[in-house]
Amino acid sequence: MSVTSPLALFGIDSLLSEEERAISSVVREYVEASISPQIADWFEKGDIPARSLAKDFGSLGLLGMHLEGYGCAGTSAVAYGLAAMELEAGDSGIRSLVSVQGSLAMYAIHEFGSEEQKNEWLPGMAAGDIVGCFGLTEADFGSNPQGMRTNAKRDGSDANSDWILNGSKMWITNGSVADVAVVWAQTDDGIRGFIVPTATPGFTASVIHKKMSLRASITSELVFENLRLPAHSMLPGVRGLKGPLSCLNEARFGIAFGTLGAARDCLQTAIDYSINRVQFDRPIAGYQLTQMKLADMTLELGKGMLLALHIGRLKDSIGVTPEQISLGKLNNAREALHIARECRSILGGNGITLEYPIIRHMNNLESVFTYEGTNEMHTLVIGQALTGLPAFR
Amino acid sequence: MSVTSPLALFGIDSLLSEEERAISSVVREYVEASISPQIADWFEKGDIPARSLAKDFGSLGLLGMHLEGYGCAGTSAVAYGLAAMELEAGDSGIRSLVSVQGSLAMYAIHEFGSEEQKNEWLPGMAAGDIVGCFGLTEADFGSNPQGMRTNAKRDGSDANSDWILNGSKMWITNGSVADVAVVWAQTDDGIRGFIVPTATPGFTASVIHKKMSLRASITSELVFENLRLPAHSMLPGVRGLKGPLSCLNEARFGIAFGTLGAARDCLQTAIDYSINRVQFDRPIAGYQLTQMKLADMTLELGKGMLLALHIGRLKDSIGVTPEQISLGKLNNAREALHIARECRSILGGNGITLEYPIIRHMNNLESVFTYEGTNEMHTLVIGQALTGLPAFR
Amino acid sequence: MSVTSPLALFGIDSLLSEEERAISSVVREYVEASISPQIADWFEKGDIPARSLAKDFGSLGLLGMHLEGYGCAGTSAVAYGLAAMELEAGDSGIRSLVSVQGSLAMYAIHEFGSEEQKNEWLPGMAAGDIVGCFGLTEADFGSNPQGMRTNAKRDGSDANSDWILNGSKMWITNGSVADVAVVWAQTDDGIRGFIVPTATPGFTASVIHKKMSLRASITSELVFENLRLPAHSMLPGVRGLKGPLSCLNEARFGIAFGTLGAARDCLQTAIDYSINRVQFDRPIAGYQLTQMKLADMTLELGKGMLLALHIGRLKDSIGVTPEQISLGKLNNAREALHIARECRSILGGNGITLEYPIIRHMNNLESVFTYEGTNEMHTLVIGQALTGLPAFR
Amino acid sequence: MSVTSPLALFGIDSLLSEEERAISSVVREYVEASISPQIADWFEKGDIPARSLAKDFGSLGLLGMHLEGYGCAGTSAVAYGLAAMELEAGDSGIRSLVSVQGSLAMYAIHEFGSEEQKNEWLPGMAAGDIVGCFGLTEADFGSNPQGMRTNAKRDGSDANSDWILNGSKMWITNGSVADVAVVWAQTDDGIRGFIVPTATPGFTASVIHKKMSLRASITSELVFENLRLPAHSMLPGVRGLKGPLSCLNEARFGIAFGTLGAARDCLQTAIDYSINRVQFDRPIAGYQLTQMKLADMTLELGKGMLLALHIGRLKDSIGVTPEQISLGKLNNAREALHIARECRSILGGNGITLEYPIIRHMNNLESVFTYEGTNEMHTLVIGQALTGLPAFR
Repeated sequence: MSVTSPLALFGIDSLLSEEERAISSVVREYVEASISPQIADWFEKGDIPARSLAKDFGSLGLLGMHLEGYGCAGTSAVAYGLAAMELEAGDSGIRSLVSVQGSLAMYAIHEFGSEEQKNEWLPGMAAGDIVGCFGLTEADFGSNPQGMRTNAKRDGSDANSDWILNGSKMWITNGSVADVAVVWAQTDDGIRGFIVPTATPGFTASVIHKKMSLRASITSELVFENLRLPAHSMLPGVRGLKGPLSCLNEARFGIAFGTLGAARDCLQTAIDYSINRVQFDRPIAGYQLTQMKLADMTLELGKGMLLALHIGRLKDSIGVTPEQISLGKLNNAREALHIARECRSILGGNGITLEYPIIRHMNNLESVFTYEGTNEMHTLVIGQALTGLPAFR
Repeated sequence: MSVTSPLALFGIDSLLSEEERAISSVVREYVEASISPQIADWFEKGDIPARSLAKDFGSLGLLGMHLEGYGCAGTSAVAYGLAAMELEAGDSGIRSLVSVQGSLAMYAIHEFGSEEQKNEWLPGMAAGDIVGCFGLTEADFGSNPQGMRTNAKRDGSDANSDWILNGSKMWITNGSVADVAVVWAQTDDGIRGFIVPTATPGFTASVIHKKMSLRASITSELVFENLRLPAHSMLPGVRGLKGPLSCLNEARFGIAFGTLGAARDCLQTAIDYSINRVQFDRPIAGYQLTQMKLADMTLELGKGMLLALHIGRLKDSIGVTPEQISLGKLNNAREALHIARECRSILGGNGITLEYPIIRHMNNLESVFTYEGTNEMHTLVIGQALTGLPAFR
Repeated sequence: MSVTSPLALFGIDSLLSEEERAISSVVREYVEASISPQIADWFEKGDIPARSLAKDFGSLGLLGMHLEGYGCAGTSAVAYGLAAMELEAGDSGIRSLVSVQGSLAMYAIHEFGSEEQKNEWLPGMAAGDIVGCFGLTEADFGSNPQGMRTNAKRDGSDANSDWILNGSKMWITNGSVADVAVVWAQTDDGIRGFIVPTATPGFTASVIHKKMSLRASITSELVFENLRLPAHSMLPGVRGLKGPLSCLNEARFGIAFGTLGAARDCLQTAIDYSINRVQFDRPIAGYQLTQMKLADMTLELGKGMLLALHIGRLKDSIGVTPEQISLGKLNNAREALHIARECRSILGGNGITLEYPIIRHMNNLESVFTYEGTNEMHTLVIGQALTGLPAFR
Repeated sequence: MSVTSPLALFGIDSLLSEEERAISSVVREYVEASISPQIADWFEKGDIPARSLAKDFGSLGLLGMHLEGYGCAGTSAVAYGLAAMELEAGDSGIRSLVSVQGSLAMYAIHEFGSEEQKNEWLPGMAAGDIVGCFGLTEADFGSNPQGMRTNAKRDGSDANSDWILNGSKMWITNGSVADVAVVWAQTDDGIRGFIVPTATPGFTASVIHKKMSLRASITSELVFENLRLPAHSMLPGVRGLKGPLSCLNEARFGIAFGTLGAARDCLQTAIDYSINRVQFDRPIAGYQLTQMKLADMTLELGKGMLLALHIGRLKDSIGVTPEQISLGKLNNAREALHIARECRSILGGNGITLEYPIIRHMNNLESVFTYEGTNEMHTLVIGQALTGLPAFR
């Protein structure tokens, strides 16, 4: 009885360089040693040791790993994607911590910050000493961030005047443990980004409880009440929504890979379970109805992997378009969720407990399916590219 | 802007008698007043006030409500189904408590018990003073109960000898709070049922933790170690697997209705949310992509309701076959789960918290989808009826 | 090896009156004797003996059978639906002939015609001596008939002046064989209906060839060039789109039943085939993958039947709403198409020839899925009923 | 209004070499000039000019193009796949003609033939002067060719004795126009292949009529009655089912690419149609419900393309396994069929005529979905690779 793993059946390894395989292995080993044994407990409790995890990820060089300089590793986009995949094989919440730090907060500063801002913040963030978060979404403005109500006003008439920040942000990963927040706000000059130390008076972060998803992740609401920021807190390099949207593109790229990690972990768990679970004197893996599920999921996992790698290779060579990232995020979050649901059914009663990772992944992927652009938003992005006609409204 | 609820759109009310509508209303009001305000907390904590709930359900006449005599209400099957539906609109775990008490434990005693057994147990169980559970499934024998290892041996050679019970049962709803368990075991005479007071020495029940589903329900493992039972503990009226299977048929009947309650609650929540949630200056209920979800779910809910009522009317008139109950359980558990998942996506980020009932229902329905016969088992039951060919092995 | 048909498994017969079963039987016998033996040839050639079929249907009392008086049978709506189902078990094209005659052309005259018009046309149409067609759809106005360009102008200034009709109609069933067309046209007074004898100068009908669907049905384009009609040709009883739309409602009602006939014929064919087709020494009906297809299709067929009967019972009692008919048309056309596709796959290579009815039904149902309101239009009708928000534009 | 084609949106071109793009272009131009203008008529009539097409394909170097020597072009596997894709964008029947000639008949002789056999047959076949067919499937042995009944017996006792062939083969593409058939038969020595000139006495081929699929392809039944073959007619290089199965692998490889051509043609047609088709004053391409269809189909087409190219690159480098080819055939035939069906619905009434290519592709793909291994067979091949457990019986 010789058995092949889904991605080995696809021959995916032949598409990776030795360095890429090495990075994958290192992260996978860390996850297996340090995350997997504890993740069910963290999830059950709804809490994680965020700061010590951040230190670990810093030591592994995973924070802002695809950025150049300022203490960042400067790897390829594919390597970054593979690391996200291994992290999310552990837990989507754990991967989210790294994504928000590297692809959102650090990326925003790296792309749009001044030299001073980069030097001040990035090395500490890359090391995991400083934890960041990213404030874009508001309670009433999810798919449509353009409508945000958070605003920053000059307390004075010249470019050296302080900014006064008011408003609130919702669904902010890392919010309550962060040292620094990159916050987007309406100004007289359009939407601008601000680097906001969370110790600043007027800043409050409250944890969102009663989540069933991403329980091993800290999700917060941020409130800014007449929060005073020095003039140089603003990110000088971008104005308008294209700033935060380009950060989201980075994060979505990581999600296109990351979700496959969760899916792979579910599928491998279900295959192993089905081989060992005997009913009517046969392993359930030997029944046609089970094999159909496994074969279909293997196909979706493999195609998702080819898609993620394709997008990654484009990003590392001729460049990737936002629409191509939409293809990756839409497909891989959706298929990962489908895989998790189907795998859960294979485990029967055992599939509802945290003893197995599947129902945890399944619940996590509900968030991932929604955040960084819903299914609907990415569908309409692709629809517009194909037809030239916007259908968002 | 005139709005119709999904079941009103189908004109379902016209299919119900006044009495049936009255029973629905009473249960719905109880659920809205006494379950819904607290269910999220119970679910979060993973605990319910089982005994006081049982008393409430007893007072409402819901325990064994479709049974005749011995303090039971003796309603029609449809009325019982409608009550299950309203309870599961509250929570599948709450409905499970009632199903296990009435359709499994009480039904087994009512159908297969001696007059003495019925008089001893049923009135107290109908009143909710005595809580029952039902021990059939074992850890290694889910879909194939025939293979059970729990056994009862006579301690002596005649019909008055005590029974010695050994073995264990898994996934037992109400197990840790029950006063009495109906336990099925191998004997020299085939599989037989036993009434087991849980205070009997040798009986232990341990709660299964780390569930993500049916957290507002007590699920236990039962262990019997040389548990001694008097000879008259055995249910005299049935031998072989057809005993417990006929109980399961009762429970599945309730599930065919019950799951629609969870689905209805999800769908109504999603409709209301989508009407109130504005993005891009329009309620998301006004977008085609949302309307397609709502229309498709309405269709499935309505068809599921027609199916459940059809089966119920058959049960109350010319009789219903096990295959017809399989149609109802297979379809309605599956479609309810699909509806819950789709509704969750409509709520976006808000869909992952227990502030809304949807993700709770979604997780609950994973259990309901699996228990009382998986999708696969019911599929093959129907397949055999259509083709004459068994394909279970 | 005892075998149950899908609808018998559901216990559908118990829902029908003796008279309804009798009508079903008569039509089924006619179809089996007179349609089924020849339908593959008619389909292959793309032609049917429309006039002799119309005479047969007239003799059987099927034309306008649910209308009262004027030579019509005056049956219940359910009986009419069951007849449509049996006809479409033969072929969707054959059922379309009857639908167009009875539910569209005759219904329009019956509902909106003057006493003179009814007496002139209905008895001959009910007998099948006069064939009718119904002109609403235009090439550029399918889902949006309001935009139609066909127009009728008075040739004079008073109510006795002739009408001059110009324009064209597309996808008109029976068009080239019809003796009379009910044509809807723009007038100064809104959209009005006209009774147009096809022998009138200025009327041309040309058959649409190269169809792959409804090949056993005559589909035509009608062109009106300065076609002169006497003043009394106009249907006096309705103005505006609600006239033709109420006719469409009648036809859709018939489709909700009819499509189930095609589906039933596919499914029964596939079950029989799979029981007789042996691969690897076992009938393919004995494999899990086949049984899953059969069980899922049985569920959809049965639920469709419950839905159609529910709508029919409403129509025969308290009345049915257009939205309820949308539920029936949307669901049953869609599911019938799915069933036909899945059944085709069960027949493997044999499934692609006209030796078996399945691929013919499959192609026919593509038309039925589209006509009388696309999937999208009915989805948005239901969406509006649920949300109060129109999303058509 | 800028518009991107589905494969351009994916950036597929960047994955192809200049030579590969050149081969694609040549075939595409031939198809557009010589196939597309006539294919609807050929399909309607159910006939093609097979011999002159074979000559054309020979001139273009497409017959056995991936084979080395003997007049064959010796291209890469990917180039062969891309050519199949362009041919099937024309019609699956046309691509089948080329597949059967090159991947089945020529490949069998090339791999398993003697030097004399290769020299005798391959150059003429490569040129399109000689048309070949491939006889494996029998009426009762589709998925299970091992059970074939066609047999060859020595007329004598030594290796120079003639063979006497008896039996029949079903669903044989090119059968009635072929000059030569490669026929697989049971012998005392296991299953062996034979080169059978169709002019040999005892050989009859009859065309299978009443097909709704692959009407632009000649499908035949072959019958062998005491057909006498010289001893050297047997293919010396292989014995057992692995001979024909390795040919099927070649053909399936071509199908993994080819089906995407049909899908691409459907999708591009539907996009163009939807941009030009106005309803309610807006192109239907501008509605959310249409965009969702287009986006989802684009995803499937693109992923199918990545999968086909991945398999092709493996075949051209480290080698491809039969299971990997199963992944490609299963997925791409299935998704192409789904795409064709969905595209048909976008065209509404216009989607049912041969004026547009979609319903033709849709019907063709029903055959392609079934032949060269059904969905079920490939599912179980993959299932066995994942679990080590065969579930075919």
